[in-house]
Amino acid sequence: MKILLKLQWILLLILPLQLLAQDPLPSWNEGQSKQAIINFVKNVTTEGSTDFVSVPERIATFDNDGTLWSEQPLYFQFLFAIDQIKVMAPKHPEWKANEPFKSILAGNLKGALAGGEKSLLAILVATHTGMTTDEFSASVKAWSDTARHPRFKKLYTECVFQPMLELLNYLRANGFKTFIVSGGNIDFMRVWAERVYGIPPEQVVGTSFKLKYQLVDGKPVLIRTQTIALLDDKEGKPVGIHDHIGRIPIAAFGNSDGDFQMLEYTTSAVGKRFGLIVHHDDAEREFAYDRQSKIGTLSKGLDEGPKRGWVIVSMKNDWKKIFSFE
Amino acid sequence: MKILLKLQWILLLILPLQLLAQDPLPSWNEGQSKQAIINFVKNVTTEGSTDFVSVPERIATFDNDGTLWSEQPLYFQFLFAIDQIKVMAPKHPEWKANEPFKSILAGNLKGALAGGEKSLLAILVATHTGMTTDEFSASVKAWSDTARHPRFKKLYTECVFQPMLELLNYLRANGFKTFIVSGGNIDFMRVWAERVYGIPPEQVVGTSFKLKYQLVDGKPVLIRTQTIALLDDKEGKPVGIHDHIGRIPIAAFGNSDGDFQMLEYTTSAVGKRFGLIVHHDDAEREFAYDRQSKIGTLSKGLDEGPKRGWVIVSMKNDWKKIFSFE
Repeated sequence: MKILLKLQWILLLILPLQLLAQDPLPSWNEGQSKQAIINFVKNVTTEGSTDFVSVPERIATFDNDGTLWSEQPLYFQFLFAIDQIKVMAPKHPEWKANEPFKSILAGNLKGALAGGEKSLLAILVATHTGMTTDEFSASVKAWSDTARHPRFKKLYTECVFQPMLELLNYLRANGFKTFIVSGGNIDFMRVWAERVYGIPPEQVVGTSFKLKYQLVDGKPVLIRTQTIALLDDKEGKPVGIHDHIGRIPIAAFGNSDGDFQMLEYTTSAVGKRFGLIVHHDDAEREFAYDRQSKIGTLSKGLDEGPKRGWVIVSMKNDWKKIFSFE
Repeated sequence: MKILLKLQWILLLILPLQLLAQDPLPSWNEGQSKQAIINFVKNVTTEGSTDFVSVPERIATFDNDGTLWSEQPLYFQFLFAIDQIKVMAPKHPEWKANEPFKSILAGNLKGALAGGEKSLLAILVATHTGMTTDEFSASVKAWSDTARHPRFKKLYTECVFQPMLELLNYLRANGFKTFIVSGGNIDFMRVWAERVYGIPPEQVVGTSFKLKYQLVDGKPVLIRTQTIALLDDKEGKPVGIHDHIGRIPIAAFGNSDGDFQMLEYTTSAVGKRFGLIVHHDDAEREFAYDRQSKIGTLSKGLDEGPKRGWVIVSMKNDWKKIFSFE
């Protein structure tokens, strides 16, 4: 008994020292970006520091597409919608004659997108609305359990950035509550966000459709209508943050101009704040794009970010590893 | 050192036993209601039990008005609005000539309400919309720090039910995450919910107005518009729960038919579930009302609740104490 107690005592002393000695961000190269993150976390978590922030106020918000996982060659949610059209087709014989479904079923994505926004909307409405929340979640689960990225040949949920997973864990280990705040659909993300990112459904904020409560055979269901309740992008992100969280984050992480207002809202507030933009500049290991890309356009953030003290992360130089499967 | 270790060891063994021996709900009289709560919590938290629920799924939702605090003679949020009209009056000289403001400023509440819904809406719009979220919160804080209940002569935030505070603590001590899901305005509650109930802003769900992100002198603000984003009452409660939480609660607590769908949604789901209705039947210590009351109408819940296995709490018989100030 005595020996056991002593051992326990020694372990209690040694473990924190070991943790301190361990690098919390091993996939980040040493450099300004990594140091800025660590300095910020130390400042806001050191009691007595003028920048100290109490645990309940340690809110960090993360964009998803392009920030936590890839978003090329197309937003993964849109690739889900394309795949889902094929899954749903047997119950929609009329699609064989109607665009954009006809082209999708013929494997002609370019043809499907020729109709522009109208086609995109038709695809979204068909795959994301009209069903119950449970039915939608089941369709996302089936897809995310099996569908693979066209280039990496991995599950989409494996195409997540290892350095960002480490960052999420590092923040949580320091008392932060981590939220997703994404233009993507809230229920699309909730299906796998807890398993992949450790972020529970109640900490996922996203674009949402108005829901309708209904009894079907006496059992309550929620029907996903076609009306947008929240468009959680650009100016919509601070709105989503206030609606769901009710406090201004002390740190925000994004990658595109769709995140500009979230970072602006976060870093304009009183007290120590942190803004970070992931810059996709590694065509070899992932993708390289910014100002000219339709997906994840990043222009204003590159120009104004540095002036506002935001950290611009170079995926090429700052990240030792991008995916865990590398 | 050895003695210290032994002492520590002994304390570790004894403390849980002491906690077990302590009554977690001292303001509840022994009886079926209290026993039903304790049995439910034991069932879902005992590992190996067929009813065991993992910690992340232990979601409990609470209505606010009439469930956590009083709601008579009028919803407290409406009493805030009335008081706030008086605070705002100096900047609105035109109100002296216009109803319902004229009557409010003359101290004639009956006259103010004579205009029915139109008057109520005018009062709500004037006091709840058009300002920034920060300005609104400041007005609620100033009011809740000073305004007193007409009968109890206590701060409104003191007119909270001691047995429900104990219940919130008891659930949290057993790994539950506690949420408010109220027809009241989300930002009205967030100002004091953390201090009074231990419920942080991100766990408050309520009726909300659409917000507009705007820069004022380069500083971001959120303007409260007049458009309702979510009416978090009746069928709106399961919608608010899905939007904000994304899981079905395993326990729901209400007091009026405005909570019916929340309890229905919660207790219809698969697995062990718990529904509870607080029945206001104690005119002496609080108020007595149900089917005939315009505020907190309870009729369907009284008829159908028992058939559905919901616990109907008699404030008169089940609660030893209602307010901590008694």
